[in-house]
Parts: sequence; C-alpha cells; structure tokens
Amino acid sequence: MSQRYTDLDKSININHGSGGRLMHEFINKHIAQKLQNGILEKFDDSAILKNAAGKRIAMSTDSYVVSPLFFPGGDIGSMCVSGTVNDVTTSGAVPYTMSLSFILEEGVDLEVIDKIIDSIAKVAKEADIKIVTGDTKVVEAGKGDQIYINTCAIGFIDDDVNISTYNATVGDSVIVTGPIGNHEVAMLKAKQMIDFEIDTVSDVAPLNKLIENVLSKTKKINVIKDPTRGGLASALIEICDHSNCEIVIKEKDIPVDKDVAAVCELIGYDPLYLANEGKFIIICNADVTDTVLQSLGPNAKLIGTVTSKDNPQLTMETLSHGRRRIGMLETSQLPRIC
Amino acid sequence: MSQRYTDLDKSININHGSGGRLMHEFINKHIAQKLQNGILEKFDDSAILKNAAGKRIAMSTDSYVVSPLFFPGGDIGSMCVSGTVNDVTTSGAVPYTMSLSFILEEGVDLEVIDKIIDSIAKVAKEADIKIVTGDTKVVEAGKGDQIYINTCAIGFIDDDVNISTYNATVGDSVIVTGPIGNHEVAMLKAKQMIDFEIDTVSDVAPLNKLIENVLSKTKKINVIKDPTRGGLASALIEICDHSNCEIVIKEKDIPVDKDVAAVCELIGYDPLYLANEGKFIIICNADVTDTVLQSLGPNAKLIGTVTSKDNPQLTMETLSHGRRRIGMLETSQLPRIC
Repeated sequence: MSQRYTDLDKSININHGSGGRLMHEFINKHIAQKLQNGILEKFDDSAILKNAAGKRIAMSTDSYVVSPLFFPGGDIGSMCVSGTVNDVTTSGAVPYTMSLSFILEEGVDLEVIDKIIDSIAKVAKEADIKIVTGDTKVVEAGKGDQIYINTCAIGFIDDDVNISTYNATVGDSVIVTGPIGNHEVAMLKAKQMIDFEIDTVSDVAPLNKLIENVLSKTKKINVIKDPTRGGLASALIEICDHSNCEIVIKEKDIPVDKDVAAVCELIGYDPLYLANEGKFIIICNADVTDTVLQSLGPNAKLIGTVTSKDNPQLTMETLSHGRRRIGMLETSQLPRIC
Repeated sequence: MSQRYTDLDKSININHGSGGRLMHEFINKHIAQKLQNGILEKFDDSAILKNAAGKRIAMSTDSYVVSPLFFPGGDIGSMCVSGTVNDVTTSGAVPYTMSLSFILEEGVDLEVIDKIIDSIAKVAKEADIKIVTGDTKVVEAGKGDQIYINTCAIGFIDDDVNISTYNATVGDSVIVTGPIGNHEVAMLKAKQMIDFEIDTVSDVAPLNKLIENVLSKTKKINVIKDPTRGGLASALIEICDHSNCEIVIKEKDIPVDKDVAAVCELIGYDPLYLANEGKFIIICNADVTDTVLQSLGPNAKLIGTVTSKDNPQLTMETLSHGRRRIGMLETSQLPRIC
C-alpha cells in the first residue's frame, strides 16, 4: 500500500484520469492552484465569460506534441500559451481567455508536469490571458509521449481593425518582426542533431503586447501571420494564395542570426522553411512602414513588397540578383517541433 | 516511388503534420470539404466570429482518447462533438462555434479518419454548431493511439438564464434525463470485456436542442450537469460540494436499463459510477418539476431532492429503505471510455 501511494504522488497513474477523487485532487493541487484567476477554479464544465459587447470574436486552437518537452529557450508550456495567444493576435484581436487540455501518458513524472504548469502560469501572466477551462485525460504507457497539450483561445477585435491573410494589397510592405529560424535550430540542439556549440535559443514568446502597441499607432495593418511550421516561405505563400497576389522578398534583407545561418549551411537546411514560435509577418500600407518598424523595435525588418494581383506566387530576389520562385515545403525538415 | 505515393493516399505519414503541401492537401480533402460552413475553409489561423452583443459567453474544452474508436452506438467523432456541445449547454448557453484538433498517429488509415470526420460532420449538423477552426499534428507510430481529438466550444447565454453547479437550493427537484450507464456498458462490449449478448448501445448524443426546448418553457432551471466520467454519483457529489448542500436520491427511482443492470450485477459494477455521454442531471425549482419532466419526455425521471444546506453530501435511500452516504469514485472502473 505505501508503495502505491508513494507512486501516486510522484507519477501519473491511469486513475488520475478516471473522473474520481484522485483526478480531482491532482487537478486541484497541480493545476488549479497555480493558474487560479477567479474563473478556472470554479470547476464548472463550462466557463462563463463577460462579453465585450458587439466586438467580433477571434477563436483559435492548437495541439502541442513537441519533443523533447524542454528545449533551449522554452518548453511545451511556454509554447502552448504563446502559440495560441499569437494565433488569436494574427486576427488583430486582443486575447481574452483560453482553455488548456492535457493528454498525459501513464508514468510521466509529476515533477515534469509541475515544471510545465509553472511555465504555463508564467507566460499566461506575461500575455495577460486567463486560462478559464480545461481537461485532463490519461492514456496507458506507450500510447502517448509524456504530455500532449491542446489550447484554444478567444479574443475580441476592435471595430476599426481589419486584419486577415486575405487583405494584402498591391504596394503593401512586408515586414518580419525579427530573425527567423531560431526555434527550429533550438529544437535541433534539443534533439542532439547538431554536435557543435551554438548559442541559439527558441524565440518562443507571446507577441500580443507588441501588436497592441503597433495598433495603438496605426490601424493600417492588413495581414499578420506567424511563420510556424513550414516557416517564412510557407506562411508567405499562404498569404499569396489567400490574397491572390504576388509577394517579392529580398534575400539580403531577411534577418537570419549568424548561428542559424551556420547551421543551415552545414546541414543543408533552408532558413526560409524553419519554424518560428515568436515572430510575425506583418503586411501594412506602404505609408505606415516606418511607423510600424519603429513600434516593433530594432529587430524588425522590411523584407519585401506586394507587387501584383492575380498571379499568386512568392518570388525571391537572391543575393546574386537573380529571381526565383519559392515553393511550399514538400516534406518535414524535422518532425514534432511544436 | 509509386509505393510511397500509394501509402500517402491510404494512411497517415509524419509529413501530413509538417506544415507543408501534403498537410494542406490532407486538411483540404479529408477535413475542410466535409465540414465547410463559410468560416472554417478560410484557413486563417484564427476564426472571426460575430458576437451576440452583450450576452455572456460560455467556453468549454475536452480531449477524447476513447478506445476503441468505434463502439456500439457511436464513435470518437460523434463523441467529440456531443461532449463539448453538452458541456457548453450545461451553463445554459446555446452552443455557437467549436474548434477541432487532431493528434494523429503515423500509420493510421485514412479510411478510419474519413469515417470519423463523416461522423463529426453529421453530429455538428444535428447540434447546429459550426466548426470554425482546427489543427492537425502527427506523432510517430507508438506515440499515440490512431487518433486523439480535442474540441473547444463557445456559446451564448441569455440574460435571464442563470445555471451553475453552485446554484442548487433547498427544496429543488433532481431530475435525470434518462437511464444511466449505457455508454460505459457499450464500451465494455466494444472492449470485449463481456461475453454475453446484450442490446445496449452508447447514449452519445448532443442535448442542446433538448435544453433549448426546456428553457423555452421555464427559466427556473438552477443546475445542469452531464454525468460522464465518474457517473451520476460523482456528478451529484460535485454539485453538493459546489452548492454546499445535501442531495438525497431514491435508488428505486433511478432509471437503469435491464441489460445495464444485468451487466452490473454480473461483474460487480455500480451503475451510479458508470459514464454517460447523452444524459443530463437537471436541478430545478420544485414548482416547475412537471413542466421540466414533460419537456424532457418519457425517459426523464425525478430521482431526488436537495434537502439541506451546509452539509455537503450525497445520500441514497436504498431499495431496502435504508440510507447510505455515496462517496466519489475511488479508482477507474474502466479506462479510456471517453
């Protein structure tokens, strides 16, 4: 008996997902106490929220299956809050509340879960979003990978904001908020797939406050998109398709950190396809380019222009002044990086 | 090469989760075409929704790890829509939109996924809820179990509705909408853990239209709760705790189908703890008991009363006219039933 109770305190057991006493105690002690905000700890099946009267609602979800769980610069916890906050922010919404669901593998250490939930609490505070509802399921050992997390967030959009991947127009400026590829290279390090010393850490971060700042200066933002899986190239191609336009970017202007460039060179990766977790593509009217760049700070760069309608494609002016069409990522460079 | 492309058409490959072309094609063909509703197929990272001005918003999430995926009366698809619709309905909200996220195991047959998505589309139509945003991740074989699904729904609550597990008051009637235990017994059958013939099928169903009908007759509903994992007993105990009250139920009045009772007798299960996927506990003012029962139809039964304040416990008057206190489920009777 004492053995059994010792184990229950240290690692996840199938009964932690049963709907019974053990599950209630686990959720109370390990989750709710750390995330309390006046709504979550009511433990109703459905959280009840105030409504910003009349404003449009943005809704977005993501599942996180990142492996390993902890990596330079972040972990699955910081990622699951940042990612969903950022997705909602891409519609120009101010994130309001989110859900948090765990699929736990039997045997995972409670210490690991505690560390992840601490990280979730920290980033939720930083992003100023309330976690208001959640769910916990447990699967047998060998039917998961320690912990998978799903989050879903909603936010409200001000009436004078109109941002969508369908809104790029000819003449618009294409900006990226900082150097690309750091997240995927940090994951390569975490997966021990590179054996030389680099300082790169993941860029995982919630960007909602950054965008609130930009929108307080100008509303002439037409598109915001996060270049996660598939990288900058895939995200820009999606914008070209949705807005039915051509975008031309200049290779020389695309910010890539030295270490990221070195890794790409060595192992034959293209930074354009590397995943990011704390960067946005921002497409704005040309006349507010400087305002936007100033609001975003020194890491943001103007990388291109929306050049024409009706021929949806992404073109890059290369360092050697050639032009080439950029295609979508064909196969994964690296699985389970988010 | 031809082998590779044949496989990609028949089963899930790690590249279906890469963010690249293959993932876009998969989502388009197998998911979006079946679920289109004018919002989902925009493929923005965040769905933009109209707002029912001023109304409170209900938000709820659930992950589904049910095994096997198909069972008498339903599948993980019907379950993932019904469950989340029902959770939102327990707050008295009218469900509005939902998210849909898949964690797919490499190697799962596309035929299986297609069948599940057909089922999702059918129940979403029945419940009149729009699936507006989603996500797809792929994990390696042996790191999942074919398919896990997460859903998150929001709904709007009319101003004159005030329903919560904190609202049971002394004198209230306790009603259950139909016979209990059918879902878990259907899962026992599906798991081949009983080897005799029974007709029991899962009760999985969305109950929002039923509740809309009740609320059109009376607003004196104080609590709605779905007795899923942990069953009727655990759900009632949660209400006792939240509302700080005693509830007394009568064993003779609790509806249990003959086959479910027989299974419980034979294998020593208690129907009070069996999971349901299409039943609600409804607690209402005593003076509207008949109105509520009539709106719910002939399967609904009055099973008890809220008897006193400040002594939160669940008591059952047994068939032999004794009284016993009912505790929370201690350990899982059966894992992964939802």
